[in-house]
Amino acid sequence: MTQRLGELAQLVGGRVEGDREREIDGVSTLERATQRELSFLTNPRYAEAARASGAGALLVPPGVEGLTQDRLVADNPYLALAKILTLLHPGRRPAAGIHPTAQIDSAARVSDDASIGAYCSVGAGTIVESGVVLHPHVVIGCDCHLGSNTELHPMVTVYDGSILGSEVVLHSGVVLGADGFGYAQSATGHEKIPQVGRVVVEDRVEIGANSTIDRAMLHETRIGSGTKIDNLVMVAHNVQVGEHCLLIAQVGVAGSARLGDQVVLAGQTGVAGHVDVGDRVQVASKSAVFKSAEPGSRLAGIPAIDSMTWRRLQVRLRRLRDLEDRLAALERRLDEDRSD
Amino acid sequence: MTQRLGELAQLVGGRVEGDREREIDGVSTLERATQRELSFLTNPRYAEAARASGAGALLVPPGVEGLTQDRLVADNPYLALAKILTLLHPGRRPAAGIHPTAQIDSAARVSDDASIGAYCSVGAGTIVESGVVLHPHVVIGCDCHLGSNTELHPMVTVYDGSILGSEVVLHSGVVLGADGFGYAQSATGHEKIPQVGRVVVEDRVEIGANSTIDRAMLHETRIGSGTKIDNLVMVAHNVQVGEHCLLIAQVGVAGSARLGDQVVLAGQTGVAGHVDVGDRVQVASKSAVFKSAEPGSRLAGIPAIDSMTWRRLQVRLRRLRDLEDRLAALERRLDEDRSD
Amino acid sequence: MTQRLGELAQLVGGRVEGDREREIDGVSTLERATQRELSFLTNPRYAEAARASGAGALLVPPGVEGLTQDRLVADNPYLALAKILTLLHPGRRPAAGIHPTAQIDSAARVSDDASIGAYCSVGAGTIVESGVVLHPHVVIGCDCHLGSNTELHPMVTVYDGSILGSEVVLHSGVVLGADGFGYAQSATGHEKIPQVGRVVVEDRVEIGANSTIDRAMLHETRIGSGTKIDNLVMVAHNVQVGEHCLLIAQVGVAGSARLGDQVVLAGQTGVAGHVDVGDRVQVASKSAVFKSAEPGSRLAGIPAIDSMTWRRLQVRLRRLRDLEDRLAALERRLDEDRSD
Repeated sequence: MTQRLGELAQLVGGRVEGDREREIDGVSTLERATQRELSFLTNPRYAEAARASGAGALLVPPGVEGLTQDRLVADNPYLALAKILTLLHPGRRPAAGIHPTAQIDSAARVSDDASIGAYCSVGAGTIVESGVVLHPHVVIGCDCHLGSNTELHPMVTVYDGSILGSEVVLHSGVVLGADGFGYAQSATGHEKIPQVGRVVVEDRVEIGANSTIDRAMLHETRIGSGTKIDNLVMVAHNVQVGEHCLLIAQVGVAGSARLGDQVVLAGQTGVAGHVDVGDRVQVASKSAVFKSAEPGSRLAGIPAIDSMTWRRLQVRLRRLRDLEDRLAALERRLDEDRSD
Repeated sequence: MTQRLGELAQLVGGRVEGDREREIDGVSTLERATQRELSFLTNPRYAEAARASGAGALLVPPGVEGLTQDRLVADNPYLALAKILTLLHPGRRPAAGIHPTAQIDSAARVSDDASIGAYCSVGAGTIVESGVVLHPHVVIGCDCHLGSNTELHPMVTVYDGSILGSEVVLHSGVVLGADGFGYAQSATGHEKIPQVGRVVVEDRVEIGANSTIDRAMLHETRIGSGTKIDNLVMVAHNVQVGEHCLLIAQVGVAGSARLGDQVVLAGQTGVAGHVDVGDRVQVASKSAVFKSAEPGSRLAGIPAIDSMTWRRLQVRLRRLRDLEDRLAALERRLDEDRSD
Repeated sequence: MTQRLGELAQLVGGRVEGDREREIDGVSTLERATQRELSFLTNPRYAEAARASGAGALLVPPGVEGLTQDRLVADNPYLALAKILTLLHPGRRPAAGIHPTAQIDSAARVSDDASIGAYCSVGAGTIVESGVVLHPHVVIGCDCHLGSNTELHPMVTVYDGSILGSEVVLHSGVVLGADGFGYAQSATGHEKIPQVGRVVVEDRVEIGANSTIDRAMLHETRIGSGTKIDNLVMVAHNVQVGEHCLLIAQVGVAGSARLGDQVVLAGQTGVAGHVDVGDRVQVASKSAVFKSAEPGSRLAGIPAIDSMTWRRLQVRLRRLRDLEDRLAALERRLDEDRSD
């Protein structure tokens, strides 16, 4: 699908520096792009690679200097990239219809223009709305609701009673609605507390491969609309995740924690149970949020503290040897002074 | 299923403060409970919410003051909650029988009152005892044993030779018995050491979604009876986990480590290979146990140390800036004294 | 399969101290081995157990003293163990052929001597080479390539366009080629950046249960030949992993990072996006590599620093209380001197 550079600029609301008529067939990396391809420079660490790139044109933010290729300048080049890639790679949805091997309970209701792949299983009372795609090997329990245009990749499991909004995407291996980890100590061991709540995933949420969202003990675990969750993330029972959050890979959020809107948890971060993480909080990777956090905080460390304070602490730790030496020197001086 | 508050008190061995005849239809959260519902207060941080709750009755430990609702007082309210929820939500087991699409090897033996769901696969030599439930899409290899009333949720994989006790619950995506990570270095790369041992999971173990328990290199990886494992946990080859342990989400236990009984590993904790973690050891979340730990220890940190020591260290780290300032002040004083 | 000790020595290029004619039926642990079994001592912490072992013979490195059993001495006993176990446990490959329930697209090409298990699904344009084993419940998308003798365990998902070399092993629950975590911020939320690249897994790579390797945004995520990846590992989009690396359980490698050859990342380690980790770098478990690392570095900590420096820092942290006390003592001395 060939586009002229000027057309792409119009699509993204940007402007061309150079030849608006240049034909572009695709997008590629700086190292591999050819004269008929667009590449992009959004991270200054790749400025050198951009200058050396064989790309016919480069997508750049305003104010980038020293490039000889034609340029498509956009205020938000990442967003422009999203639009261009969506245009050039429209994706393919499988045809509507139910594969003959799919097991659809007679008390389930599946929209005519949903696509249900081979070996899928859909339980009684479940409603599958228009445009839903279940790839092969998806198991949906009873009494679930899948909103329109939601797409579940192979090997997704959705336990009974889960509610999914519209345009939700679940990648392979996601498990929605497994029992929360709730036990009461008795004289003979850990007695299971039945987990009788559910999971609600709002519109336009995307959840990465092999992540798990547990059902609530009583009411619901909820993932707010527009939130994006990466691979191998654990969201425990009763957790409330706000809207437009980003939970990067291998994050864990413990039971009954609440995240506000637009929270960003970087990779391998943990959030303790019952804490309250305010809107727009950003937590650095590998951190552990043990206490509630004010809206807008930037946190890092184990335990997580203000990220600037954490960075200064790292500098001080590097000076610890020097501190010890200076203290020993002072002790010697004082001893010498005394012995004078 | 309506119960009178007095009946619930009898069930859990508690007592009623208020109206024993109050009718209870269900259990709900403090915020959402209505006059015909029971809620509960076990965590003091929710005392305010309890006072404001519309619940008809509250399940509380002894000694809670200031509540106007009827109260069910129990020494162990969590255990009482487990019993009440079990009564009110008895759960549904699928009917016995083998789904026509299930692939059962002719040399497997499946009890007549087991339930085998759609598209399950059971290998030669495997024995499935009475009351076992395999939900759809469970794959069991050859020569396995599944004890009575064990329940496997969709997408569980059990490799050849695995032994499961009675009343085991495996949630979706659990992988039992994959090869341990064992390689020998040769001149040309990493040579695989065949992993010819097995996995043994004892009675009443529950394992959360997408957790993985690797087979032993030679003998067996073992999970002791009554132990509960959360989601996305990794137990490596040859590990011995004792009885009634709790392994919270995203914990990793490296090869040949041994955990005693009633060990608690909080979320995202790691235990190094070959170490010995004594009975009743409790490790705070996000810690790394690099050395063997005495029974009853409380540990925290990377590396994990006594948790009280770890807490004091955090306080000292916050004083590090002050320490530097005081040292600099001393140096100045001494210089001034000298120059006097 | 009985072997004489002398035959095993010949197999592994080792020598016998004791009876070359001793008959060996299998390999077992030190605690459980009998007179007709071989055990091994490779970790000095088990020297006592070795002396007490009932094994008929022990596989040992050169220079081990004080053992009364017959010994097979090998320079690299782990490599010898790999060879002996491979001989004694040859493993069983399922017979060639396509199970009648497998869904093979008419535009896929499957070698006659591949084995495709029950309920597998193979998409259009995919090529499955000679000797490939797909265990039951494997889903392969469109336009993939599976090299000869590659083995995929149950519940593996391979998204469209993924390329696997020869002798690759993927354990259950592995997800290859799910979308990378790429979004552009817009006024209304996070806009998905289509992930139109692919995953390439080179020859002799093994990937553990429930690990996930995301497809690239544009070109490819690549795992170099001979690299071994443990369970629950996350490799993000655009990552380049070199040859013969070891990524232990629960490691996460963020987007566009590059690992050289023979890199070892111990359990639960994280590597930040866009960093460059040189050949032969070794990172201790639970560390976070936030910056690029020179070839051959040994790193530990959060943030990861030289591992010897990290160890010294731990010692200094234990002295922090003492440092505070000494500083306070100095302050008192100085005050007393003044007041003299």
